[in-house]
Amino acid sequence: MSTIEDVAKLAGLSRTTVSRVLNDHPYVSDEKKKLVQKAMEQLGYVPNSAARSLRNQKTGIIAVLIPRISDPFFSQLIEILEMEASSKGYQLIICQTQFSKQKECRYLNLLKTKQVDGVIMTSVENDWSVIDTYLNFGPVILCNENVDCAQVPMVYINQAESGYMVAKYLLERGHTRIAYCSSGMSRKGTQSRLEGFMSALQEADIHDYDQYFFERVSTVGDGQQIFRKLENMKAAPTALIAGEDAVAAGIISEAKKLGWNIPGDLTVVGYDHMTMTKLIDPMIATVIQPVEIMAKKSIEVICEKIHKKQFRVFENHEFSSKLVFRQSLLNNRNLVATS
Amino acid sequence: MSTIEDVAKLAGLSRTTVSRVLNDHPYVSDEKKKLVQKAMEQLGYVPNSAARSLRNQKTGIIAVLIPRISDPFFSQLIEILEMEASSKGYQLIICQTQFSKQKECRYLNLLKTKQVDGVIMTSVENDWSVIDTYLNFGPVILCNENVDCAQVPMVYINQAESGYMVAKYLLERGHTRIAYCSSGMSRKGTQSRLEGFMSALQEADIHDYDQYFFERVSTVGDGQQIFRKLENMKAAPTALIAGEDAVAAGIISEAKKLGWNIPGDLTVVGYDHMTMTKLIDPMIATVIQPVEIMAKKSIEVICEKIHKKQFRVFENHEFSSKLVFRQSLLNNRNLVATS
Repeated sequence: MSTIEDVAKLAGLSRTTVSRVLNDHPYVSDEKKKLVQKAMEQLGYVPNSAARSLRNQKTGIIAVLIPRISDPFFSQLIEILEMEASSKGYQLIICQTQFSKQKECRYLNLLKTKQVDGVIMTSVENDWSVIDTYLNFGPVILCNENVDCAQVPMVYINQAESGYMVAKYLLERGHTRIAYCSSGMSRKGTQSRLEGFMSALQEADIHDYDQYFFERVSTVGDGQQIFRKLENMKAAPTALIAGEDAVAAGIISEAKKLGWNIPGDLTVVGYDHMTMTKLIDPMIATVIQPVEIMAKKSIEVICEKIHKKQFRVFENHEFSSKLVFRQSLLNNRNLVATS
Repeated sequence: MSTIEDVAKLAGLSRTTVSRVLNDHPYVSDEKKKLVQKAMEQLGYVPNSAARSLRNQKTGIIAVLIPRISDPFFSQLIEILEMEASSKGYQLIICQTQFSKQKECRYLNLLKTKQVDGVIMTSVENDWSVIDTYLNFGPVILCNENVDCAQVPMVYINQAESGYMVAKYLLERGHTRIAYCSSGMSRKGTQSRLEGFMSALQEADIHDYDQYFFERVSTVGDGQQIFRKLENMKAAPTALIAGEDAVAAGIISEAKKLGWNIPGDLTVVGYDHMTMTKLIDPMIATVIQPVEIMAKKSIEVICEKIHKKQFRVFENHEFSSKLVFRQSLLNNRNLVATS
């Protein structure tokens, strides 16, 4: 089994430098870090985490709490988080809460029992007062989520801006009956997106959108069911914003089955820029969320907080999303006819 | 904060029974387990794992090692593993190896440092002799993978049977030029599936299939590229087996773009029964892998090994997959014309 000395020799660096890289010391150049990582990979060197843990009170492990792994948005986010953590010498462990308050607490308990150095939460199930008690034991940051009263760093997308942008685009093209599918109201981001959407509608003096609003819609099957409801409406919407691409795909598949033309009869916009949006006919217009930037910033921030032992700091890191124009968004014949 | 006594009181059971449930004692009825879990959920009770760990030398944590979380097959598998582990009172942590030998060792090291009670490996990157050394510290099982020489329980799909079944089906319908896309040759399951496929071809006295064999193909983009190669062949294949549904989707999207009819010009079969297979036109025929059964068996086996402290036991748990007939598999006009 290779030792830290073997790594130093192969990398052509001192034992102290290698040790600094292993312990995530701030004053080591990226070049030296890469040399050490390359040598470690070549030798199959594994730092003895028990000894390391005793020495510096660290486990080298960061936990990410996510509601559901099978959601493609989250699996994409986790993939980048893991690669970033790894490049900084941390192991990432992923914990699925399944939206359960109790599971969230059990995983947060890993901080208390010193099994992880820090926690990244991608959603919040308990009241913040419950989460806050864990901040006595280590750093917690929010990624893709924000909570008003939380004294922690928050890395998130400006969803209000995003909801406003998509609504504004549709309104400017003459749509007035715009359906809106939301995955759920528990997340702050989801609420903000809806608020952005509504404020654009209010600016355009449109107020009676209750009948076009659908909650807890997040799968292909949900989208298919929603379309059945739309189809039976007296004044069916001419456009629809789906909170997830899977929902948009469900809407479109059901619409086509029932002889509707997309976008001829209904303009559809999804969210998340998933691969499937390019494979379906018509290709689905979607909103790109800056997942990679958000993941990188989250790892940078949690590492800093672990290193500085700062457990209660308020910080806002906000990013913007972008609309991708595709077939499902263009040439709505209802509008051509009425405008 | 609630105590074990509060849980016992609310569940209407003795403190000993609650403690038995928490420690995964074998002689507790499912009914009592449910009562305890319900009371725990209601009270937000979190067992103190540090104390628990000192008492019984257990962490209550199982680690799952997977190559890539964003692969929909694995994210589906993990989701069920997590729910099963949770129902047995274990926390599941998910560790992404990114096919790296070094990362695999670092995560296996969690056994050595007593940070987890057991490990489920869904792929194997290192030589088994390397993995075997970790078996001194706790139980490891293989899920969706098997290794000939490994002295551990293995829960997997009979891929040889599956490859044989799909090839046989196509051969019986008159196909003789069958393309085969494989994700990679490092996994035993992938090799076995190819062997099954080849043995069906050999039985049918077809031997020159090298030109129709494609390796390291696993994404939509890969599928699109493969189609460009097929299209330029003198004797293009009449059928294609894709190792993953994403590849089948890529093949079909590119084929349609270039004016091919699916299945008229090319019959396509995918693997894994992903949602997208139902949304694409034509709907993609695919092979259902028994993910749920495999996940449940894996958790049952790892819990048993943790409980009995059996770290080196050879066990085989083998399951079969099933072909789902859909449009992409039917009525190939090339065959109609030649048969």
